[in-house]
Amino acid sequence: MFTSRPIGFVSSPYKDASEVPKGLGAKHEADGVLKILPEFEPGLTDIEGFSHLIVIWEFDRSQGFQLTASPPSDNRSHGVFATRSPLRPNPIALTTVELRHREGTELHVRGVDMLDGTPILDIKPYLSNIPDEKLRRGWLAEAEARKN
Amino acid sequence: MFTSRPIGFVSSPYKDASEVPKGLGAKHEADGVLKILPEFEPGLTDIEGFSHLIVIWEFDRSQGFQLTASPPSDNRSHGVFATRSPLRPNPIALTTVELRHREGTELHVRGVDMLDGTPILDIKPYLSNIPDEKLRRGWLAEAEARKN
Repeated sequence: MFTSRPIGFVSSPYKDASEVPKGLGAKHEADGVLKILPEFEPGLTDIEGFSHLIVIWEFDRSQGFQLTASPPSDNRSHGVFATRSPLRPNPIALTTVELRHREGTELHVRGVDMLDGTPILDIKPYLSNIPDEKLRRGWLAEAEARKN
Repeated sequence: MFTSRPIGFVSSPYKDASEVPKGLGAKHEADGVLKILPEFEPGLTDIEGFSHLIVIWEFDRSQGFQLTASPPSDNRSHGVFATRSPLRPNPIALTTVELRHREGTELHVRGVDMLDGTPILDIKPYLSNIPDEKLRRGWLAEAEARKN
């Protein structure tokens, strides 16, 4: 196995988890900057061509894990692997952001839900979608239906 | 930072990287099984409701990293963060699979591109798409256009 290392850090308007929009219908439209460490700049070559990036980051302010979680979008609990709970066996998070522009080692993005200073582990290009008609969203779709 | 730990292992038809479909138009339709360790079974509660899962796994047979990569889908090199190259600063991989059915700790899935025995780090539900009309795919779209 491996020990994680940051490739950069997120500059975000959110200083505390309570500030991040949560629950059904929450929109993630905040602007932020992925500040990549200078030693990794060659790894960003040609990234500007992609409209969306998958950012893999570390839940660095979470401690330990819980195998069931009550997400803010539902009043029922679910297995952690059926949720985006931060209390996971490996504290790995994933956020898809829109790449607005790049300035050297700074990726200016829209859609951050990370806290300011969050370590970034990896960035991958967003390549393809699952066709909407094939997508089932389990308890989340049920919670949305109950709300409506 | 954290040290990764497996939550389970992939059972895959691929024993060697040369067997995994690669390059433009490659289809990932192989069936496989995500065998989750028994201690994590409660974390799978309600996962059956989701048609697609994001599997986060470890490139455990890669050594080191290279900041630029020549992907099998192009004859030009690109920054590692604009590719899915296995030689990354953190050896973290991501595959979206279709969940066919669950038997206890075994998730039977379609669309594996991992090697047999690959350690699984995390599983997250696939929740939403980026609208196709907003998606730009940089060098990959260019390579596809040159091929056609």
